[in-house]
Amino acid sequence: MRRAEDKELGLGPRLPGTPRQSWLYSEIRAAVLGGRISSGARLPPTRDFARQLGVSRGTVLAVFEQLVAEGFLVGAVGKGTFVSRQLPVMRNPKNAGPIPAPAAVGRLSQRGGLLASSPFAIGGRPQETRPFRPNQPDLAAFPFALWNRITARRSRLSQRVMLADGDARGYPPLRQAIAEHLRYSMRIECRAEQILIVGSVQQALDLCARLLLDPGDEVWVEDPGYTGARQVFAATGAKVVGVPVDTHGMDIDAGTRLAPHARLAYVTAGRQTPLGMPLALDRRLALLQWTEKADAYVIEDDYDSEFRYSGSPLAALKSLDTQERVIYAGSFSKVMFPSLRLAYVVAPEWLSAHFAAALSLTARHMSLLPQAVLHEFIAEGHFGRHIRSMRTLYGERAAVLEKAARHQLDGLLNVLPITTGLDAAALLPFGTNDKRIAQAAVAAGIETRPLSAYAIDRPAPSGLVLGFAPFDRKQIETGVSTLSQVLEASLIGCK
Amino acid sequence: MRRAEDKELGLGPRLPGTPRQSWLYSEIRAAVLGGRISSGARLPPTRDFARQLGVSRGTVLAVFEQLVAEGFLVGAVGKGTFVSRQLPVMRNPKNAGPIPAPAAVGRLSQRGGLLASSPFAIGGRPQETRPFRPNQPDLAAFPFALWNRITARRSRLSQRVMLADGDARGYPPLRQAIAEHLRYSMRIECRAEQILIVGSVQQALDLCARLLLDPGDEVWVEDPGYTGARQVFAATGAKVVGVPVDTHGMDIDAGTRLAPHARLAYVTAGRQTPLGMPLALDRRLALLQWTEKADAYVIEDDYDSEFRYSGSPLAALKSLDTQERVIYAGSFSKVMFPSLRLAYVVAPEWLSAHFAAALSLTARHMSLLPQAVLHEFIAEGHFGRHIRSMRTLYGERAAVLEKAARHQLDGLLNVLPITTGLDAAALLPFGTNDKRIAQAAVAAGIETRPLSAYAIDRPAPSGLVLGFAPFDRKQIETGVSTLSQVLEASLIGCK
Repeated sequence: MRRAEDKELGLGPRLPGTPRQSWLYSEIRAAVLGGRISSGARLPPTRDFARQLGVSRGTVLAVFEQLVAEGFLVGAVGKGTFVSRQLPVMRNPKNAGPIPAPAAVGRLSQRGGLLASSPFAIGGRPQETRPFRPNQPDLAAFPFALWNRITARRSRLSQRVMLADGDARGYPPLRQAIAEHLRYSMRIECRAEQILIVGSVQQALDLCARLLLDPGDEVWVEDPGYTGARQVFAATGAKVVGVPVDTHGMDIDAGTRLAPHARLAYVTAGRQTPLGMPLALDRRLALLQWTEKADAYVIEDDYDSEFRYSGSPLAALKSLDTQERVIYAGSFSKVMFPSLRLAYVVAPEWLSAHFAAALSLTARHMSLLPQAVLHEFIAEGHFGRHIRSMRTLYGERAAVLEKAARHQLDGLLNVLPITTGLDAAALLPFGTNDKRIAQAAVAAGIETRPLSAYAIDRPAPSGLVLGFAPFDRKQIETGVSTLSQVLEASLIGCK
Repeated sequence: MRRAEDKELGLGPRLPGTPRQSWLYSEIRAAVLGGRISSGARLPPTRDFARQLGVSRGTVLAVFEQLVAEGFLVGAVGKGTFVSRQLPVMRNPKNAGPIPAPAAVGRLSQRGGLLASSPFAIGGRPQETRPFRPNQPDLAAFPFALWNRITARRSRLSQRVMLADGDARGYPPLRQAIAEHLRYSMRIECRAEQILIVGSVQQALDLCARLLLDPGDEVWVEDPGYTGARQVFAATGAKVVGVPVDTHGMDIDAGTRLAPHARLAYVTAGRQTPLGMPLALDRRLALLQWTEKADAYVIEDDYDSEFRYSGSPLAALKSLDTQERVIYAGSFSKVMFPSLRLAYVVAPEWLSAHFAAALSLTARHMSLLPQAVLHEFIAEGHFGRHIRSMRTLYGERAAVLEKAARHQLDGLLNVLPITTGLDAAALLPFGTNDKRIAQAAVAAGIETRPLSAYAIDRPAPSGLVLGFAPFDRKQIETGVSTLSQVLEASLIGCK
């Protein structure tokens, strides 16, 4: 009974900067867990212990009290403080050796293995955006000062209700503003109740796939197509079927042959990712007819077709959907800025309450302040103005790229006509290894994405995706020159 | 060939307020889709058509241009404008009758049916928070003005890098600040790399279950326990096993008997939801031993154990985890405010990169500004001060409730000692129908949650959960009086 009192407790030394109380707590705890003080042993009386350790008695009392509360020690008035007898014999941490290496410990589930793989850069991209990194808006052209003024104002206006749990579907005035915007820009007729605010199109795709597909169900994706969609669908257990794309977009007949009983089709109808053309009207109608026949659904992913350079944006596929089979997914990452992390879906009437429940169960709702600020930005007309102004700016840059490419890349890289969006698709001579070209370009300071990186089930055409939106005339022209040198050197090297 | 020119196109009337261009676009489009203008038919020359319709020729030209771009019409220079011949024959929308009712159209997948059910109020809770609504912090006590000043300042400081895609794991300085906070408050030693910022504990639970469990795998949850966890686990296809709770928390021996090969255990170790006791130390150690034997993992959900009223918060279960098997999930919804929608996990080293990839794939990352503001709030010491001040305030309110309950509810409702958190558990006489009591209380203006609402696999003790944190002395005392009247009336009525 007196062992702990009589002999050395084996407390480790206190490191400089560690408060006495933390040190004493940790050391006694470790001694108990490590078995260096036996179950039931009595600790020294607080006064003696304090003197022995050179700390105040208050420190010892506070530590004992905490360790009693946590169950390491038990105290009985007038009898002293003891190590708990309730503790199971633990493996001695001191003798247990080093913690096993992660691989030896961790085991993901089978589906976890699919889920734990992302096509996005985890650590962000702190370095300067270089030509021609795809899929980037011009952040320097964003009206910061205005946005920040609205943030400050909106933040001051916060009332208690703005702090409480919000609507799982998103901030109602924002959903109303989006519904109105879509009516004019995309000719989608919908009610605010059908709009659901999410953090990203990825989140929308994940939830849609889980709501509409069981594991093993098939989903059509464009081939070549957006890898983020392919991966998130696969992670939900869906069987991803690549459907070939020709100059009119996804080949619906091919899809019908390849997977007639698919439950879902994913399509970038406004501007095919990565090739750039819109889905032709006859294909749109054929796709909708197929959904009725197959009892299937469509996700229309639209992140940059607001930026159409030769006229108004094309009406969305969703605008043709009289049968409640199209889910339209839009994002503010490109038309506003990526770190805002707000996106939305327009759900068919029958799906909206189900989607809201699934979102609430798996995420609750998005942070409220950014939604409220975005709402003001739209309601005050800044959003429309910003889109129009970026449409002009990006349109000029698209023209600069097309012209520079005609002059300097002729025969090397065929930049397809740019009608819409932030990126151009460009074709390399048949059979060129586009990954190797992209690597050579990076070495020369030029970022592109090879078309082969978008391949799903079949080889993609050889080519590069070039982003142009955030770069000025000089950057684009210099970039094209550099690229032409890279191509000349590489293509000769390849022959 | 001249049909469309010669006869009435059957355009509907223009409603007041509809711009001419929108009207003409919609009507021609509807006429084409409805088959009222045949495939290949020629439209009238723009000049004649404009005169006939009473609109400007520019309007007709703009509409034709848009409809050509969208594929409804084709134009040939000098030959006129024709309805596309490419369109498949569509079901005539005018004759198709009303859109089928939602139930007839929509079909969720099997797992979608599980996912589309949430225990949370979808539309938010705009009405006043009434005593004794559980699980609510006192929003009136939150330092708004300070928070808003920091928001305004942080927003002004935004640089271009703050607009770009962020780190999928969360804003790095915030993760560092959380790691430091947890070291002192919860005695968790972890690196910032192990912290991952999510939008809610629900999101963390969903991702953990998908990463660690395959469909059909078993997961332990406390019984009675947190329904949000049960539902989100079930939605991932897991088999939820309720493990009984006694006065020491989850009964680990019972769990081992009921589901020895479970892959995951979910536990509210700091303060059991809903009964309120911490998980005893011997149970904690037994739980960890079981995980090693079963090759299983633990999620420790901790959302209000910072608020311990009789001393420092108890060390987290995670602080005992030397084997990298515990995932600690914390939330800012209660210690800050719910609409902030920020939470975090401390992942074992081996899991953190996998979790980051899954988060990136299914959600990208959380909105950046709220993270940056929260970081400043913590770094400047306001967070620690706010917690300490709420601990004092809520502790006083807990004492008011305990005292009022002793005086007025004796024999009717036994309020268990309140050591921690925002809610008290209170037991009704054995066999009372607590749902009926809760309903009677609502009619009297008092909100509570019956313990039976937390039941998983077995009946819960009869009782009520009473939230006290947001209510002042008068509200609590009046609420207890009202409750005593309700109980007297109801319990007599039950006999």
